[in-house]
Amino acid sequence: MRPSGRQINEMREVSIEVGVNRHAEGSCLIKMGHTHVLCTASIDEKVPPFMKNSGLGWVTAEYGMLPRATNTRMRREAKTSQSGRTQEIQRLIGRSLRAGVDRVALGERQITIDCDVIQADGGTRCASITGGWVALKLAVNKLMKARLITSDPLIEPVSALSCGIYAGQMVMDLDYPEDSEAGVDGNFVMTGGKLIEVQMSAEGSTFSREQMDGLLDLATEGCVQLRAAQLAAVA
Amino acid sequence: MRPSGRQINEMREVSIEVGVNRHAEGSCLIKMGHTHVLCTASIDEKVPPFMKNSGLGWVTAEYGMLPRATNTRMRREAKTSQSGRTQEIQRLIGRSLRAGVDRVALGERQITIDCDVIQADGGTRCASITGGWVALKLAVNKLMKARLITSDPLIEPVSALSCGIYAGQMVMDLDYPEDSEAGVDGNFVMTGGKLIEVQMSAEGSTFSREQMDGLLDLATEGCVQLRAAQLAAVA
Amino acid sequence: MRPSGRQINEMREVSIEVGVNRHAEGSCLIKMGHTHVLCTASIDEKVPPFMKNSGLGWVTAEYGMLPRATNTRMRREAKTSQSGRTQEIQRLIGRSLRAGVDRVALGERQITIDCDVIQADGGTRCASITGGWVALKLAVNKLMKARLITSDPLIEPVSALSCGIYAGQMVMDLDYPEDSEAGVDGNFVMTGGKLIEVQMSAEGSTFSREQMDGLLDLATEGCVQLRAAQLAAVA
Amino acid sequence: MRPSGRQINEMREVSIEVGVNRHAEGSCLIKMGHTHVLCTASIDEKVPPFMKNSGLGWVTAEYGMLPRATNTRMRREAKTSQSGRTQEIQRLIGRSLRAGVDRVALGERQITIDCDVIQADGGTRCASITGGWVALKLAVNKLMKARLITSDPLIEPVSALSCGIYAGQMVMDLDYPEDSEAGVDGNFVMTGGKLIEVQMSAEGSTFSREQMDGLLDLATEGCVQLRAAQLAAVA
Amino acid sequence: MRPSGRQINEMREVSIEVGVNRHAEGSCLIKMGHTHVLCTASIDEKVPPFMKNSGLGWVTAEYGMLPRATNTRMRREAKTSQSGRTQEIQRLIGRSLRAGVDRVALGERQITIDCDVIQADGGTRCASITGGWVALKLAVNKLMKARLITSDPLIEPVSALSCGIYAGQMVMDLDYPEDSEAGVDGNFVMTGGKLIEVQMSAEGSTFSREQMDGLLDLATEGCVQLRAAQLAAVA
Amino acid sequence: MRPSGRQINEMREVSIEVGVNRHAEGSCLIKMGHTHVLCTASIDEKVPPFMKNSGLGWVTAEYGMLPRATNTRMRREAKTSQSGRTQEIQRLIGRSLRAGVDRVALGERQITIDCDVIQADGGTRCASITGGWVALKLAVNKLMKARLITSDPLIEPVSALSCGIYAGQMVMDLDYPEDSEAGVDGNFVMTGGKLIEVQMSAEGSTFSREQMDGLLDLATEGCVQLRAAQLAAVA
Repeated sequence: MRPSGRQINEMREVSIEVGVNRHAEGSCLIKMGHTHVLCTASIDEKVPPFMKNSGLGWVTAEYGMLPRATNTRMRREAKTSQSGRTQEIQRLIGRSLRAGVDRVALGERQITIDCDVIQADGGTRCASITGGWVALKLAVNKLMKARLITSDPLIEPVSALSCGIYAGQMVMDLDYPEDSEAGVDGNFVMTGGKLIEVQMSAEGSTFSREQMDGLLDLATEGCVQLRAAQLAAVA
Repeated sequence: MRPSGRQINEMREVSIEVGVNRHAEGSCLIKMGHTHVLCTASIDEKVPPFMKNSGLGWVTAEYGMLPRATNTRMRREAKTSQSGRTQEIQRLIGRSLRAGVDRVALGERQITIDCDVIQADGGTRCASITGGWVALKLAVNKLMKARLITSDPLIEPVSALSCGIYAGQMVMDLDYPEDSEAGVDGNFVMTGGKLIEVQMSAEGSTFSREQMDGLLDLATEGCVQLRAAQLAAVA
Repeated sequence: MRPSGRQINEMREVSIEVGVNRHAEGSCLIKMGHTHVLCTASIDEKVPPFMKNSGLGWVTAEYGMLPRATNTRMRREAKTSQSGRTQEIQRLIGRSLRAGVDRVALGERQITIDCDVIQADGGTRCASITGGWVALKLAVNKLMKARLITSDPLIEPVSALSCGIYAGQMVMDLDYPEDSEAGVDGNFVMTGGKLIEVQMSAEGSTFSREQMDGLLDLATEGCVQLRAAQLAAVA
Repeated sequence: MRPSGRQINEMREVSIEVGVNRHAEGSCLIKMGHTHVLCTASIDEKVPPFMKNSGLGWVTAEYGMLPRATNTRMRREAKTSQSGRTQEIQRLIGRSLRAGVDRVALGERQITIDCDVIQADGGTRCASITGGWVALKLAVNKLMKARLITSDPLIEPVSALSCGIYAGQMVMDLDYPEDSEAGVDGNFVMTGGKLIEVQMSAEGSTFSREQMDGLLDLATEGCVQLRAAQLAAVA
Repeated sequence: MRPSGRQINEMREVSIEVGVNRHAEGSCLIKMGHTHVLCTASIDEKVPPFMKNSGLGWVTAEYGMLPRATNTRMRREAKTSQSGRTQEIQRLIGRSLRAGVDRVALGERQITIDCDVIQADGGTRCASITGGWVALKLAVNKLMKARLITSDPLIEPVSALSCGIYAGQMVMDLDYPEDSEAGVDGNFVMTGGKLIEVQMSAEGSTFSREQMDGLLDLATEGCVQLRAAQLAAVA
Repeated sequence: MRPSGRQINEMREVSIEVGVNRHAEGSCLIKMGHTHVLCTASIDEKVPPFMKNSGLGWVTAEYGMLPRATNTRMRREAKTSQSGRTQEIQRLIGRSLRAGVDRVALGERQITIDCDVIQADGGTRCASITGGWVALKLAVNKLMKARLITSDPLIEPVSALSCGIYAGQMVMDLDYPEDSEAGVDGNFVMTGGKLIEVQMSAEGSTFSREQMDGLLDLATEGCVQLRAAQLAAVA
């Protein structure tokens, strides 16, 4: 029995509200149950130095948490003082979104996706990827409407979900009470039925290939649902 | 004529939504027009070292902005890398709220008010004080309900408003287009008809005592309205 | 009765010695009683990036304290590790001096005013502004003598004074024993009979408009005396 | 054809020299071809604050590179200035080694594994895990010999290997020329035939479950060889 | 011919004014020509952690420069951001003064010598040692007068002087124009006719033992004069 | 009797192994007994900004220690967080090597010498200079072979040795047990029979000119032996 009463393969309620920020080129507030992440996309016509004159676009991400997004108050982080966990997460978000971008079609410009966790209840990195893609898509739509780019650099949504082994059972979309108890925990990023990133780890434990396969099956099932929510949001 | 079409003594629409964060002991989302600030109150049963064994409580504040709260993307700040402007603002918020607290009645504990600007359109420091008081009050109510404190350390709301001279006229509650043009700009913090803090400055200009008096009159008028909104929110 | 035995409207002895540094383009040592501040003006023919090609000049300030300027030894601060208090003070000094400068007449160059407190006894920020103006004026005189600028960008001295309510009485020019006890404390910056900046705050208290008016009267009276001392120093 | 002329399932020559540092409680120099990592284990009888009085031991890791370990000179990193990549790697090393430790048997003490890359040619994080286990084992042996612990907290070696898709083929133990070209890259950490960590990512690309399975097969085959080398080294 | 017109073995005019700071336990302003250094001694009844319960005293130093002590404006330094040059100098000052202290007689307390260069014209590190000893002596006198220590831990003054080879000649007490041209430059710290520290270096050059001996002779001659000035100042 | 059983004028066994790093332009591992330092030379065709268009070359050094080079584990240091000791050492290494370089012959390029202590047993700074020269020479040979420079900018080896007074006797090449007890300690850098740098200091003690002369004699004798080892290594 899961703490939330959910079925083993039942995702939390997903809501994606777009256009929540009047300054950003694209924005959404994604809610996976009590996990709420504000995602904004900022277009910058300059790329980082190492990409200059390459003709290629760049997508990068920053991840942050409001001090009281969690049960105990946390300290604020600047780009230069981010914890290892924060850096690991935002590198994952950037890498995942870039895998779904045609960088030639995007053209030599950078889009920064800021994912700020307003309230956390597990699965914030996956929600950031799923919501980040929506903000990215809205910003790209703006560029296309302004005819700054002519062919859509985003074909398929990039979706992400965490699945793990909780109380001996493989469950979909871990919330915080599950995540803090899970022996094995995986984050899966997918697009168009293919894998972009798989990160499985066992804190103080091990896992078998059968368990790995079971979690991949669950994640694949969930990502289909997330893709539908993403497409509905940007429609 | 003001850019927003408002009357000279007309405040922006005020909205204070409480209970917006499930982890914080008190929280609200205050909106002054397009300026949106999320305020949370976090109770800590420990006070800072310099107050230990004093029997007195402490209220402090931190102020932050999401990267895309403004028209151009801004860098994130940690406590150790805050700009002078940020530090000045959060010192003002803390000092203002403390002036409305009976620190003996609060008892030896600390309440931290986090004011995070989700979207900025001028007047964020004043909205933070006004909303911060609401979050503080809700946290105090929780302490009283739990009988951890017995007499209410907060008697009167602390409210704050900026007024300034825009296009030669004294106007209430400057928004960003006005603020960026104003020659003289004042922030006024009040409680129960008395003053807590007055900060008036003229960037590249000067002002007379008559102008100072006029702005104080406007601020006094506005703070009466803010007080009513605060009391309604915590009712 | 004031700890120093001074009258309520009696300023400490003021002394401004000019030309105390052979490297700086302008310099003075200002003493307000036991508060001693070394002020130097450094001319830089380059302005900060955000002002380039504007044709306008810039005046900025840095404020520091020698480790033993105070009764207990303090740590040194670099520009990147300044406390909130230090940043607030030097922003005030810069803003105040700029308000007395005709930036077109100054031409596209920057003057940095360094205010280093050799010995502190209250009122260091006000002494820094008053002395800083003298250093600035001397540097400007050098530019005029060298015909690098043709019309004087400084018309009237900028003077600053703190006044507050000590032991229930409104007193002029608080020294440290008064400042540390004062319930209400104001810093007033003036030029040519007009106001540049007013900062009044009440730590753990409130004040009325009548009290505010009384302190402004005192400050106005004192600034007239400071102006005379400044003009005598630069004569 | 691989740049090194190796077979698809051929690992680079592995050499593990133990006892290379006279100060450390355990040490080895592991070479995987041209990748050379110096691993030392330092025993500290104190655990981090969050583990105090838990009765449990802790194993942590730090990862560094000498400035000229790579083809172009790199800057030195302190613990507080480590790049995201460095932090990600050392978190992986620590997590992986802990998964192979019986923390009750280790007792309340900390062992820090320092992995310093003397020369890099791809696969440094995996070499660090494999060599780090050897240094850890030698330090544990010292504790057992001194009868500070009575039952061996390490049962099975923890081994790690990177496998990826290079030039369309699944290859074992990527060296730098392969790694910099590989579209899909995985790091696999194993112990006793089970998985501890799987990290697969595709920079600017995607991969299928079949490819994932193929790489896992290769890694499993290689880890058997690494385990033999580890056991020989500590014998 | 020296730029200043001085004889080869002629020191600049030395002046040591004591009691220049009302907060410090000992203080002086030392002038070696245009080099002016403010030295303060701060007594702390606590020693650094590594000396606790040793029964021994400690003397340490910090060195700083006001931003306009030099011809071009310099940035401020905090303890955590000091340049290599600054750290090297303050380590030298501390080490030199400690060599002249009977740490048992001083008792378990720390005295911090702050040497702040108000105006620089070469030889600031040597002036800091010479003036620092005076401030130290005055602080020690205070401790003896208060009977906190009973036997004088300072027997002989510690004096320091720089000598070097300028324009092919060995000269005493280099000023800035000489120092910036000198091929060989030495700093000599002495007490009671013995050596405490010798630092000779040749930037882009070499020197012979004969030259070394000649500079030592000059320094010995000068330190006799400095000792007299120190004893006169503390009399 | 020395702890190692060595004669008073007996150096530790010296070994210099060249070509230990496949990426660096020059490299060696120098061993002075148990002190092991890895030295690499990195050629950069750009010089620091202050040397641009001077036509002169530059040689600089960085010094580091692996965390477990010493008996207790030490923290890693970045360029921006180096201790005073580290900075002092690497400034000495750079200055010493530059004194042996004809910067015109080197041409406008920079060579960085990294000296990383793998294992420490006293005398690491001197070993770094001696080994650093070997790495520098090998890099210069590469430039000459490639005809990027035509006349050898290095004529004579730069060698360094520490000598000090241990247990009342003047001894050559202090190891750690001696160094930590020595009252007087000197580092001597020489080239072609001339001096480049002399640093003598007495922690909590003094020394006479006779002692200074004796240590210089010992160092001169030892540097002849080091020069032979350096020339053999680069032959």
